[in-house]
Amino acid sequence: MNEFELIAQLTKALPTNASVVAGPGDDCAVLDMGWPEGWTLLKTDAVVSGVHFGPEAAPEQVGHKALGRCLSDIAAMGGAATAAVVTVGLPKDFDVAFIKNVYAGMSVLAHRHGVAIVGGETTTNLERFWLSVAAVGQVARDRCVRRSGAKPGDALFVTGELGGSLAGKHLAFEPRLAEGQWLAAQGFAHAMIDVSDGLVGDLRHILQRSGVGAEILARAIPISRAAKLKAKSESAAKPPLLAALTDGEDFELLFAVASRDAVTLLDRWKEQFPSVRLSCIGKITAAPGLKIRDDKGVRMLEAHGYVHFA
Amino acid sequence: MNEFELIAQLTKALPTNASVVAGPGDDCAVLDMGWPEGWTLLKTDAVVSGVHFGPEAAPEQVGHKALGRCLSDIAAMGGAATAAVVTVGLPKDFDVAFIKNVYAGMSVLAHRHGVAIVGGETTTNLERFWLSVAAVGQVARDRCVRRSGAKPGDALFVTGELGGSLAGKHLAFEPRLAEGQWLAAQGFAHAMIDVSDGLVGDLRHILQRSGVGAEILARAIPISRAAKLKAKSESAAKPPLLAALTDGEDFELLFAVASRDAVTLLDRWKEQFPSVRLSCIGKITAAPGLKIRDDKGVRMLEAHGYVHFA
Repeated sequence: MNEFELIAQLTKALPTNASVVAGPGDDCAVLDMGWPEGWTLLKTDAVVSGVHFGPEAAPEQVGHKALGRCLSDIAAMGGAATAAVVTVGLPKDFDVAFIKNVYAGMSVLAHRHGVAIVGGETTTNLERFWLSVAAVGQVARDRCVRRSGAKPGDALFVTGELGGSLAGKHLAFEPRLAEGQWLAAQGFAHAMIDVSDGLVGDLRHILQRSGVGAEILARAIPISRAAKLKAKSESAAKPPLLAALTDGEDFELLFAVASRDAVTLLDRWKEQFPSVRLSCIGKITAAPGLKIRDDKGVRMLEAHGYVHFA
Repeated sequence: MNEFELIAQLTKALPTNASVVAGPGDDCAVLDMGWPEGWTLLKTDAVVSGVHFGPEAAPEQVGHKALGRCLSDIAAMGGAATAAVVTVGLPKDFDVAFIKNVYAGMSVLAHRHGVAIVGGETTTNLERFWLSVAAVGQVARDRCVRRSGAKPGDALFVTGELGGSLAGKHLAFEPRLAEGQWLAAQGFAHAMIDVSDGLVGDLRHILQRSGVGAEILARAIPISRAAKLKAKSESAAKPPLLAALTDGEDFELLFAVASRDAVTLLDRWKEQFPSVRLSCIGKITAAPGLKIRDDKGVRMLEAHGYVHFA
């Protein structure tokens, strides 16, 4: 059983109440807590030593990544992040300086995005260090962007560049909070997700929730320098395009926009975020399934994003 | 360095913003997220296999405890719990049935208190299972009960019975959400905390935050049957009173009430919660420090609650 199958089973029949606008299955939970203009967003995530980061990671980067993952999910709803709380699992021989630097890394990121860190617990975990972060945010009712709103004909956009994140970006990415809020405020985005599991995997979440398909253009995928370098230096590495399609942990925003708004969006984006690349990578289709178009024609993309580049 | 010293160091200079009503140092963080009538409460906590529960714990109890700890903290602010999200750290050889039953235990408790479970993440932890829960709640601005409001002359009350929780109650306690909200609505409680670290330890948090002292009455402490049984059956066990003063994980509410309201409170409590014991265990004093009065007179209670019963 993989992670998605397990989560699907665990979240099948969870208790709910009148406050729940969106439960499991979107980037954040969305709650109506009585605030007249808006909804509350709630997200939790964790990083574990040896799983999400290795000995090469500086403690500041570990803190950055743990908080950044939650903030990226709030960004993908078009929300603003308000505050976060932290639980730390400590191994027996934990180093106080290490933990302090983890907190320092979190604090720098939180400060930059106006997020308060409002509490912490520590617990023993004996073998290895982990860090669980929960964040709350808020979004205006008419601006919340879900995974489910993509419509046939929509243009698909992705921020930044993709692939090869493990070379360093996964520890240093900047959650796209400003970009997500701006998109939500412009009213452009019909559906949005952050690219954490890989472009193809996360696009499938949008397609599934929206009941649509998509066709992406191979030459339009923004391939990162890291993915290209890796392919050049390691003979066993994925081809760069495959890395951009399937590597995880880029924490970019992937979203669908009405095709009539696509040019306006690109123009305004360049003014607003001149240093952040924005790529139109394809379109939403009424026919289900995920296809890719390259020089040789159009083919279906397989389940986990892997495609045979014969 | 103990847990409290470490947390004190880590939380010394955390980023804050205009939403923060209360950050670290109370049962929950309190946030003003723009809801005209009330505040948002945020809390996270975790349980780790081999640390917070042993092999004797049923998975349903593990889920109950993990969520119950967060709900108890929301209760201690006088708040209502709205929703929770969960992160699960899974060992290599995890048992799907075990995890499902953990969720079942959480779900039963959540359902009973009207709490929605709105999301979950799973991650690998390799050696041992852990469960981190984050919960949000809400409380009216004029009803939020902090740790800091105790006044000299206040009567001190505690719900339920104390001591010997490890015999079973720590896996099956009922968070006092209804009681906490009722107390807050009556306007009785000046200060409140949940008894998670032990009566003496948690009372000291109230005293420190409120800038007061207290004198408690040995014969008024509600000693649990579990603590009495343990003292009888194990020669090395703590005397029952000491267990009631210092054992943790009872998750009862400890609160201070103006002495003029004490009798009214007891009367109304009996009508409202006939099956929940409520004990007046002492009073708040202007003089700092924590004293205990018994047949032999009044003595200071030492730092960690341990007192020499010569």
